[in-house]
Amino acid sequence: MGLIVQKYGGSSVGDVERIKNVARRVCETRDAGNKVVVVVSAMRGETDRLIGLAKQIMKIPTEREMDMILATGEQTTIALTAMALHDMGIPAVSLTGAQAGIVTDGVHTKAKISNITPERIHGFLEEGNVVIVAGFQGQTPEGNITTLGRGGSDLTAIALAAALKADLCQIFTDVDGVYTCDPRIVGNARKLNEISYEEMLELASLGAKVMQSRSVEFAKKFGVIFEVRSSLNTNPGTIVKEENPSMESVVVRGVSLDKNQAKLTLFSVPDKPGMASRIFKHLAQASVNVDMIVQNVSHAADSPATDLSFTVEKADLAKACRVIEDMKGEVGFSELVSDEDVCKVSIVGVGMRTHSGVAAKMFETLSEGSINIEMISTSEIKISVVIRLAEGEKATQALHDAFIEI
Amino acid sequence: MGLIVQKYGGSSVGDVERIKNVARRVCETRDAGNKVVVVVSAMRGETDRLIGLAKQIMKIPTEREMDMILATGEQTTIALTAMALHDMGIPAVSLTGAQAGIVTDGVHTKAKISNITPERIHGFLEEGNVVIVAGFQGQTPEGNITTLGRGGSDLTAIALAAALKADLCQIFTDVDGVYTCDPRIVGNARKLNEISYEEMLELASLGAKVMQSRSVEFAKKFGVIFEVRSSLNTNPGTIVKEENPSMESVVVRGVSLDKNQAKLTLFSVPDKPGMASRIFKHLAQASVNVDMIVQNVSHAADSPATDLSFTVEKADLAKACRVIEDMKGEVGFSELVSDEDVCKVSIVGVGMRTHSGVAAKMFETLSEGSINIEMISTSEIKISVVIRLAEGEKATQALHDAFIEI
Repeated sequence: MGLIVQKYGGSSVGDVERIKNVARRVCETRDAGNKVVVVVSAMRGETDRLIGLAKQIMKIPTEREMDMILATGEQTTIALTAMALHDMGIPAVSLTGAQAGIVTDGVHTKAKISNITPERIHGFLEEGNVVIVAGFQGQTPEGNITTLGRGGSDLTAIALAAALKADLCQIFTDVDGVYTCDPRIVGNARKLNEISYEEMLELASLGAKVMQSRSVEFAKKFGVIFEVRSSLNTNPGTIVKEENPSMESVVVRGVSLDKNQAKLTLFSVPDKPGMASRIFKHLAQASVNVDMIVQNVSHAADSPATDLSFTVEKADLAKACRVIEDMKGEVGFSELVSDEDVCKVSIVGVGMRTHSGVAAKMFETLSEGSINIEMISTSEIKISVVIRLAEGEKATQALHDAFIEI
Repeated sequence: MGLIVQKYGGSSVGDVERIKNVARRVCETRDAGNKVVVVVSAMRGETDRLIGLAKQIMKIPTEREMDMILATGEQTTIALTAMALHDMGIPAVSLTGAQAGIVTDGVHTKAKISNITPERIHGFLEEGNVVIVAGFQGQTPEGNITTLGRGGSDLTAIALAAALKADLCQIFTDVDGVYTCDPRIVGNARKLNEISYEEMLELASLGAKVMQSRSVEFAKKFGVIFEVRSSLNTNPGTIVKEENPSMESVVVRGVSLDKNQAKLTLFSVPDKPGMASRIFKHLAQASVNVDMIVQNVSHAADSPATDLSFTVEKADLAKACRVIEDMKGEVGFSELVSDEDVCKVSIVGVGMRTHSGVAAKMFETLSEGSINIEMISTSEIKISVVIRLAEGEKATQALHDAFIEI
């Protein structure tokens, strides 16, 4: 007998039938002798409907009121999920984020959980209830309703699992788990049985859509072991947990491809202290997220100048170009060239720490495929390269073949 | 400078344009130097949509969860109304029933307000905000969300006006106020400038759709003066307040017609103690509301038996007949006759207390129109008669002509 937190996302509770399906799964978990806390999102489409209503009233809706209206989405789902359990004869109680004791800071629409007082949940569990908690929301100490921003329901589940000292946290989604690569790109990609928090974080930041980084970071910080699995079948999913020595035997856990990159190059930037910081400060002020940065050594000792390349999301490219052009006089580069026809391919694995020659093998693999590398960036457990967009899928498959054991 | 509570019902906030219209009215009230608390209902149709969702999950949804889902309706409206004010540059804060300090008992779907702690509202008002409160809802001392049942938003407004010691409470609706009669029946019916709580209560119980009795009772109990007026124009409405001596100069305040009545007659009921109580106890247990009751004297001293007539709502007629037939052996009446072709016409006015001959004039008026009276029921400030359905409108017009000064 354990305490299990289960989270079901918007597509898992997308309509009445799916909510009944969730209730059946919850029921099975309970019948197996577990106490169950269920976290649900708003029904798919509901959040967009509410945002649409708000924008008809006000072009840029005020954030406190946005949270007030958005919070109704999950509140509807918790009531329906509790009813579906009642209809099966299972005692269940729904709680809003506020009622569940989820306290956040006051940054409306992207609040951070500051603490959870789970006494009420424990009380309802002791009475034999399944407890259904609205994901994505909480309240400030002053009693204002807040929402947690993108991926907020995952965060609610993992934070509750930590506060309740749950034995397991299950994140139900529409995929079977975390894969060695996107199966739409690499046909023989396989589901991982386990992955470390750090590898999961690198994959999240590389564009793998399974979970937001913040939820994984929260789980890592509080040591919450969680499983990512499908709500549409009963296959076991992927367990995400602290790195252990056996994980190091695998050099590369996964390969990822991010087609959403664009490259900018500033030629002949005067090689003076403070130049880079000035450029990237302006970009940050314009809310442009810069990913990889590469700067070469100076061309000549007498007239020191360098070429500076960096990548941004494609959606930010036009804005980034405007910011850079505006500061041409200030910085004094000779030319700005932007390039949308690039992509980023990465390999990730904690085993890289203890295995040498990983980068060499990666570059060799790409070279054998006649794929030219334009930029390189590395972290302790990740190597990323920027290449031509047209060669992205070929490169991903080649690296998957070279590094991943099937 | 005063404190005004304004309530806008579901049709007044039925769509985005109407919500903007409400915001403009609130703005005008504020510009006139008042502090404003606004109570809003769910957008028209929204409550039905939510009930429909719930019933797809569970035929008879559990009541705690029904309250959880229904409460989202008003929560959506308060956020949109606050945004509409923000869009006009007016500081405004939305509060759910729970956040506004509305505490109720635990009778889900028809909770009673037990007390209100208005400190938070006062705080926001002091800071210069318009405060928007979700009608129809509150929370129990244990923190469960409740709803107040039909007419709940009116009740919220009047209870808040009492708790805040407001100078005025305005109930905005889709009619101009309280009329001497339904203008669809009597063309020259006119709007009343004022009416006493008791007259308003009698009219409410007689089927006038303006307000539920419980809200008027609450206002009477706490001496809340309120105005019923239209959200679609700027005409002054009807002030509802404590009876005062000048009101007695008007004998009849209003005439009402209720076509939703059916009559049952039990012939030859044995005239023994306890018969009537037994009959009406069974009807009450079956949730049949009985309105008028008339019992004649016994037919003969040697075999005492009486005829018993009463009226119920048309929707309850079949059920009432079943209940009565089932107890035929127990009661021993000779025959049950039901009649749907009846209606009830009433005259109401506190002036009846001090004016004699009102009933005589009413019966004379009907007699002059060759209208036969089948049942009569009186209270201190009301006389009702049951007549043929086909003669209802004619009788209503005749009584209006006889009693109401235009």
